[in-house]
Amino acid sequence: MAEQNLDPSEVRIFSGSSHPQLAADIARYLEVPLESTHISRFSNDNLYFQLGASVRGRRVYIVQSLFPPVNDHLVELLMMLDIARSAAAKDIHAIIPYFSFARSDKKDAPRISITAKLIADLLTTAGATHFMTMMLHSPQVHGFFSIPADPLTARPVFEMYFRGRDFTDAIVVAPDMGNAKSAGRFANSLGLPVAAGNKERITDQEVRISGFVGRQVKGFKKALIYDDEVSTGSSVIELCRLLVQSGIEDISVVSTHGVFVGNALQRLSQEAVIKEIVTTDTVDIPPEKRTSNLHVLSVAPIMGEAIRRNYQRMSIEGLFVFGEEEGEFTD
Amino acid sequence: MAEQNLDPSEVRIFSGSSHPQLAADIARYLEVPLESTHISRFSNDNLYFQLGASVRGRRVYIVQSLFPPVNDHLVELLMMLDIARSAAAKDIHAIIPYFSFARSDKKDAPRISITAKLIADLLTTAGATHFMTMMLHSPQVHGFFSIPADPLTARPVFEMYFRGRDFTDAIVVAPDMGNAKSAGRFANSLGLPVAAGNKERITDQEVRISGFVGRQVKGFKKALIYDDEVSTGSSVIELCRLLVQSGIEDISVVSTHGVFVGNALQRLSQEAVIKEIVTTDTVDIPPEKRTSNLHVLSVAPIMGEAIRRNYQRMSIEGLFVFGEEEGEFTD
Amino acid sequence: MAEQNLDPSEVRIFSGSSHPQLAADIARYLEVPLESTHISRFSNDNLYFQLGASVRGRRVYIVQSLFPPVNDHLVELLMMLDIARSAAAKDIHAIIPYFSFARSDKKDAPRISITAKLIADLLTTAGATHFMTMMLHSPQVHGFFSIPADPLTARPVFEMYFRGRDFTDAIVVAPDMGNAKSAGRFANSLGLPVAAGNKERITDQEVRISGFVGRQVKGFKKALIYDDEVSTGSSVIELCRLLVQSGIEDISVVSTHGVFVGNALQRLSQEAVIKEIVTTDTVDIPPEKRTSNLHVLSVAPIMGEAIRRNYQRMSIEGLFVFGEEEGEFTD
Amino acid sequence: MAEQNLDPSEVRIFSGSSHPQLAADIARYLEVPLESTHISRFSNDNLYFQLGASVRGRRVYIVQSLFPPVNDHLVELLMMLDIARSAAAKDIHAIIPYFSFARSDKKDAPRISITAKLIADLLTTAGATHFMTMMLHSPQVHGFFSIPADPLTARPVFEMYFRGRDFTDAIVVAPDMGNAKSAGRFANSLGLPVAAGNKERITDQEVRISGFVGRQVKGFKKALIYDDEVSTGSSVIELCRLLVQSGIEDISVVSTHGVFVGNALQRLSQEAVIKEIVTTDTVDIPPEKRTSNLHVLSVAPIMGEAIRRNYQRMSIEGLFVFGEEEGEFTD
Amino acid sequence: MAEQNLDPSEVRIFSGSSHPQLAADIARYLEVPLESTHISRFSNDNLYFQLGASVRGRRVYIVQSLFPPVNDHLVELLMMLDIARSAAAKDIHAIIPYFSFARSDKKDAPRISITAKLIADLLTTAGATHFMTMMLHSPQVHGFFSIPADPLTARPVFEMYFRGRDFTDAIVVAPDMGNAKSAGRFANSLGLPVAAGNKERITDQEVRISGFVGRQVKGFKKALIYDDEVSTGSSVIELCRLLVQSGIEDISVVSTHGVFVGNALQRLSQEAVIKEIVTTDTVDIPPEKRTSNLHVLSVAPIMGEAIRRNYQRMSIEGLFVFGEEEGEFTD
Amino acid sequence: MAEQNLDPSEVRIFSGSSHPQLAADIARYLEVPLESTHISRFSNDNLYFQLGASVRGRRVYIVQSLFPPVNDHLVELLMMLDIARSAAAKDIHAIIPYFSFARSDKKDAPRISITAKLIADLLTTAGATHFMTMMLHSPQVHGFFSIPADPLTARPVFEMYFRGRDFTDAIVVAPDMGNAKSAGRFANSLGLPVAAGNKERITDQEVRISGFVGRQVKGFKKALIYDDEVSTGSSVIELCRLLVQSGIEDISVVSTHGVFVGNALQRLSQEAVIKEIVTTDTVDIPPEKRTSNLHVLSVAPIMGEAIRRNYQRMSIEGLFVFGEEEGEFTD
Repeated sequence: MAEQNLDPSEVRIFSGSSHPQLAADIARYLEVPLESTHISRFSNDNLYFQLGASVRGRRVYIVQSLFPPVNDHLVELLMMLDIARSAAAKDIHAIIPYFSFARSDKKDAPRISITAKLIADLLTTAGATHFMTMMLHSPQVHGFFSIPADPLTARPVFEMYFRGRDFTDAIVVAPDMGNAKSAGRFANSLGLPVAAGNKERITDQEVRISGFVGRQVKGFKKALIYDDEVSTGSSVIELCRLLVQSGIEDISVVSTHGVFVGNALQRLSQEAVIKEIVTTDTVDIPPEKRTSNLHVLSVAPIMGEAIRRNYQRMSIEGLFVFGEEEGEFTD
Repeated sequence: MAEQNLDPSEVRIFSGSSHPQLAADIARYLEVPLESTHISRFSNDNLYFQLGASVRGRRVYIVQSLFPPVNDHLVELLMMLDIARSAAAKDIHAIIPYFSFARSDKKDAPRISITAKLIADLLTTAGATHFMTMMLHSPQVHGFFSIPADPLTARPVFEMYFRGRDFTDAIVVAPDMGNAKSAGRFANSLGLPVAAGNKERITDQEVRISGFVGRQVKGFKKALIYDDEVSTGSSVIELCRLLVQSGIEDISVVSTHGVFVGNALQRLSQEAVIKEIVTTDTVDIPPEKRTSNLHVLSVAPIMGEAIRRNYQRMSIEGLFVFGEEEGEFTD
Repeated sequence: MAEQNLDPSEVRIFSGSSHPQLAADIARYLEVPLESTHISRFSNDNLYFQLGASVRGRRVYIVQSLFPPVNDHLVELLMMLDIARSAAAKDIHAIIPYFSFARSDKKDAPRISITAKLIADLLTTAGATHFMTMMLHSPQVHGFFSIPADPLTARPVFEMYFRGRDFTDAIVVAPDMGNAKSAGRFANSLGLPVAAGNKERITDQEVRISGFVGRQVKGFKKALIYDDEVSTGSSVIELCRLLVQSGIEDISVVSTHGVFVGNALQRLSQEAVIKEIVTTDTVDIPPEKRTSNLHVLSVAPIMGEAIRRNYQRMSIEGLFVFGEEEGEFTD
Repeated sequence: MAEQNLDPSEVRIFSGSSHPQLAADIARYLEVPLESTHISRFSNDNLYFQLGASVRGRRVYIVQSLFPPVNDHLVELLMMLDIARSAAAKDIHAIIPYFSFARSDKKDAPRISITAKLIADLLTTAGATHFMTMMLHSPQVHGFFSIPADPLTARPVFEMYFRGRDFTDAIVVAPDMGNAKSAGRFANSLGLPVAAGNKERITDQEVRISGFVGRQVKGFKKALIYDDEVSTGSSVIELCRLLVQSGIEDISVVSTHGVFVGNALQRLSQEAVIKEIVTTDTVDIPPEKRTSNLHVLSVAPIMGEAIRRNYQRMSIEGLFVFGEEEGEFTD
Repeated sequence: MAEQNLDPSEVRIFSGSSHPQLAADIARYLEVPLESTHISRFSNDNLYFQLGASVRGRRVYIVQSLFPPVNDHLVELLMMLDIARSAAAKDIHAIIPYFSFARSDKKDAPRISITAKLIADLLTTAGATHFMTMMLHSPQVHGFFSIPADPLTARPVFEMYFRGRDFTDAIVVAPDMGNAKSAGRFANSLGLPVAAGNKERITDQEVRISGFVGRQVKGFKKALIYDDEVSTGSSVIELCRLLVQSGIEDISVVSTHGVFVGNALQRLSQEAVIKEIVTTDTVDIPPEKRTSNLHVLSVAPIMGEAIRRNYQRMSIEGLFVFGEEEGEFTD
Repeated sequence: MAEQNLDPSEVRIFSGSSHPQLAADIARYLEVPLESTHISRFSNDNLYFQLGASVRGRRVYIVQSLFPPVNDHLVELLMMLDIARSAAAKDIHAIIPYFSFARSDKKDAPRISITAKLIADLLTTAGATHFMTMMLHSPQVHGFFSIPADPLTARPVFEMYFRGRDFTDAIVVAPDMGNAKSAGRFANSLGLPVAAGNKERITDQEVRISGFVGRQVKGFKKALIYDDEVSTGSSVIELCRLLVQSGIEDISVVSTHGVFVGNALQRLSQEAVIKEIVTTDTVDIPPEKRTSNLHVLSVAPIMGEAIRRNYQRMSIEGLFVFGEEEGEFTD
């Protein structure tokens, strides 16, 4: 397919304060400049935000990832959308590499908020006309948006990273059934078998993984743990112990969203069996938190390519996450 | 809790043509009359629908279950909502015992519709101000609604049915992980262990269940298969075979939505190991299709009670399905 | 005016299952391909619909005619609109050759639905940004739409059909006053006089036409009955009898929407005085129902031309039905 | 039926400047006070409007009739609705005795406005939650409103006026087919036959009525002309001439909306055959314009009763105009 | 900056009846034709409005200034917007040189309307997708619009008018603090000092200006009174008296919106100290009202240039009124 | 007026985490319990919020003040509104004692957000049906809300505090014209004269007050500085210096919103001339920041009373801020 780029006079890309590096990388992929912004706070803590270039009649792409401090990043994003809308942008694309709210996707207790739905509505009210993200927590969250939504997958960057590796005696393992299908697709692309942990939640802080689903792990030597998001790292550590008991000697942790709160990376580093942690830059991991076995792959080419195809009215089918779960109909 | 009933001068209950019996049973539970309706078709196939009682300023409950012919039932429902809205009803409750569209809850192929979301929007446009249903296919579908939604659970009627049974050597089995949590709660209420099938979809028409998750079935003699919906019955039959191989001698099939299309009930009856099929009346099963081992329990008391509590501004917490799945946060 | 065609890379035309032939003919007129679709049903009767080509940023034309089974065709249409909207189409044109719901345009009994208004709202909710149809039942239905609407007229195809005919002693007759103005314009274009039946409804199934308005029929030999829609054919047959009593010996029935339910065509064929039945393809008449004296003219050139002009931002004034009724103001 | 009145602490009735007398009469019927308002104009011609009583949590009825100066009356009405809405009224009823815009109900020329639809939307935007009017020009206008709408009929006040009259040799005549059905119902209630003029529009200022539909007038001596609205009076005068030619010697003109612009009443008075002009007070006719043969009947009891029934959640079926036209379906 | 004009085939400019001359001047600036319109009234006072050129897919600019008769001009404008919207215009720009409603911008008494907000909502409902005006009464009114809004400033035309004047001993004076910032910017551009009157309102008809703020006037000989709007002229006359007492001998009155109701211009002419009145054509001042010392400058180049830049997607920063008031944050 | 309280079974009051003390005080005033809430954060920083009592059919009051950390408090508030809405509350009152965003009320630079308008829209989207606050920064912000809004005034609590004081030689001073009208009303209630500072902003951090407007300060000994909000305290300190130069020996600082960021209170305490700082509890000032001359008055009785009157459908006229600025019309 002939390469066609964006017309720079037609588009404007801006970054909120959460992840300017990723925004710059996406802009570079697209060969358009990342426009400047001016962010400050009034003495009463209210944000002051100014976009640094005219958006009138332009296609505006706003890149903001929703990792901690989540609420500050969210309000910034809503203000940026509002500015673009009230300044007569032609269309406004909310590019949210990590949409953390996707985890609040159901009402599993009375009188709580399905916050992912609320945020979807707020983004639309503020002016978003299109939503793009990486790897939603559950595929149904797509349906919370009344604007077109493109949940992308980071699988291609992982595949490229592992291409050519010797995977003798290796197996892909998902910590629980929720990630089993994604893990299966990933395993498939590497020609590996797949298993899933049988995770049980003991308390809010504690999980137990009592065994494996789909395939026994015994007999394998290497495991690739594949999870959508690693936050405190507890599940991964629990899974590692079980895998070691099953004879695994070498583990790669693979996760799209490397939230790694607190000392999660340090804790993971202390597990000798973990040889490497492979994640993406949907969350910005500051240099001082990075450990030597951490490999951060950029999703900029994927998000950039999706933006390019969207702009060029090409299908983004290959970059899209389609359900990543068991088919549902005809029992 | 003091019993308080609905003020009959305040409410109006109507039924579409899909399931007048269930509507009548709900009305009887609430001790209010089921109002008449007039339904016919114009010569060009357009529906003509008239509500038989004034709804001005009333709280209106419209009962319509969305089993086949689904589209006819849907359009009827939309018309009933529209009539109530344009005739100045105070609030309009869409009581949809079987919301079949819930299964279309994600975009697992390009250029398809997340139809459950579309229908949620159409119901709201037509005038619904509140939605009540039994057992949604996935808990996230709740978030597709911008009006208050109450997905209820039929578990209490199943528990009452089985109360006092001898369950020595019995186990509850879900056909797949998707139903595992509901099955667990059900098992819990009967004091039984639970297992889940490891279902794989071969083709659109064929599934394979390769084993069990969570608990081995060997050693048990009786099994209660617990599924949210049985349509063609293929999954259940596949699961039966595996259970028989594992030593099970007596199976009860338990399912909220007994869709039983075509000759599904006949096929299930031919499996000797299935001693009984227990379902609810969210779907109307005509007498001629019913088999001798089919037991249909009514959800009218549950839906009626939920309506009563909603009317009386009481919490419906105990009747609500809260997520019915693994907790999600803090990994 | 210079001929300008559609840019095929800019547009996508799809057909629902109701009338793929007409959709194909419109596409051919426009010299753009009719894209494929995939339609099936889940085991629980829910529709599954997939558009066969990317619509991202495209101008999408969805052709679906609402004849029986009306509700199935309607739900299909709503799903197609929803798919196009959520897949980021630029604009979405609902091309509905026969909008049968237009007949439910007023509240002539308490607690019924002005269904045409409801459907207009549902189409908009589902994603339509423009509505195009042939010959609305009443011109006010136009005002039910909050999106731009283009009700077209089939008169040009009828005029072309009859051009050159010998119309000595011929008169155009509308069955009732509701169609009198359209009939008048048609008569005018052929240089003929016009009369209207004085129709009275006896029961829901029976009408009586007691005489003629505007012009006496006596003295004429040929009549062209001009009606917007023929469904059971009862009105036409009643009118024929009266015309025969007035001396008419040769009748052509001319009607835009040939719904012809049940054995309507057979009944009309048995009236010896009816020499020909001329209708259009807004409704698909299967070959086995067609009688030898039936002539089906295609509206594809008219709808295609209207689409072309809309696309080219040209006025469609000449194709539009302007009120087709008595002027109203200044008494 | 037990008489139940409005709770005065619950309701607030206000009048715009168009017709305070009718508003006061409606309030008196309902036995609640008409609240005061303060209306003035700023020096730049902008209206200043203040409601004279708190509407917080109240059911608010705003009476404003849209006769000339129509635009001033409309803007006043929109402001009153807005005040009630932003001051937290519970519900807001737009009581518009003469909704003149109803005549702009279709697009009978390119690039004009279906103004009745526009005004319906504006009323809703401004805050109306319910619309009540007398005798809409066409029944389809009902469908332009997305809020509940109650078009009432003035027929009962006319029936009461004529009750007991000697109607030997009398016939009811509608000037055109558009009013034929209403005229028929009116005739029916008096036990009289009915005919309709066959009106043709020559120019914007001139009409011709070439004959009668349905029933010949010859042989009758008295005629009751029944029209929904009389503005310049030209149609009525034209019809009178034809009726005189047919032998009519005594004419009563009966019309719901007596707009009587300019010297219309004077012109009608000069027709000796017109013995009386009977209209209602939906339009305020100043004393100096009234002629001696003009009888103005009040619709206050009908509108008041409709408000009372709406408030008491009773059906207003008997006061409602149901379609007032030929039934449409089953041909 | 390279001059780029509008593509005439892409745009349509229409004028309501309020100020066709200004509309024509804007069109001439843009080198596109002003399209014709047809405006008349029905016999019941309802407006009839027809746009004279197809707007399908076009960018439509509707020019209407809201001076007296304000309500007639407003309803015309709403109809024009509605026509463009329902005729499928691409975008619709409400160009309102004098948005008189801006003065009703707050609730300074109970149960009144913030009319500027209401009108903003009505314009949006009717179809406006962009709003452009000159000099809003307060900058917050911008926030009443949910569509992009461009409040422009007339300062450049005043600056050009006064360029080169001898302003020895001259000072700019605002009648009150509300206009002080605008006056300051204007003074700045001429290199003059600025003072503001300390206005107090005695009654609705009477104001008192008790002194000056910021700078004493004593010692100056010439004053330029700078106000956003002059209506009755009372404030200006009161200010003149005070200025004369302070030693001013020569006054120029400068005001964007010259509403000049009643005999305001005559009254101002009688003040000998007023040497000239300089205003713009946002309000149409008929020749017979103009006095010899009145100079009307056209805003057509400013509004035209803003339209051109908007069309060309250029920033209109230089033409925009940015707050024109004290900065607010960090105390 | 007869005292009527809220029916506790009808209402639910909740507090976000920003100011539970004020919420509790309001609840105590109303004699209804403050319901519990559960707030926590997920490991990815997303908020988890649960309301502690059923809101079904209840009137729900949510108290949350928007002081720092503003964004956290805002997102909490949006979630609480969403929970109440989706749990079928009857109406939802956002009680926001300090609506800090009100300061972002206009576009005084290109491509910034009128954030107060954005937040008003977001609150509505999340579910608020009524908004109540203390002392908006500018009265126009009221018009940003499309739901009923009640901006209240704290003046009564200040008046009560100062009642009976010896105010010989005292004057009320506003730091700038923006607060002059409020200050005037306050001065009026104490029988004191009023002056306003002539504030000029030098840089974002620095202001200069060059003199006084309205009234000279010379000759007075005591001053009450009256400002709506004190944040860093710079304006107050600048004003104090000027007042001291004018002979003032004793200053009371009076301000509704005591934001007092950083060491503002310490800085103010170091000004010997400031004898007392009087503020309200719209912002929570932690004990450790409070200085000995700080007096915090509670607005709980005012907000509670406004809630009570709203509930009882009484006018809240006396508690409302009406424009607090110069009248605008008739120049």
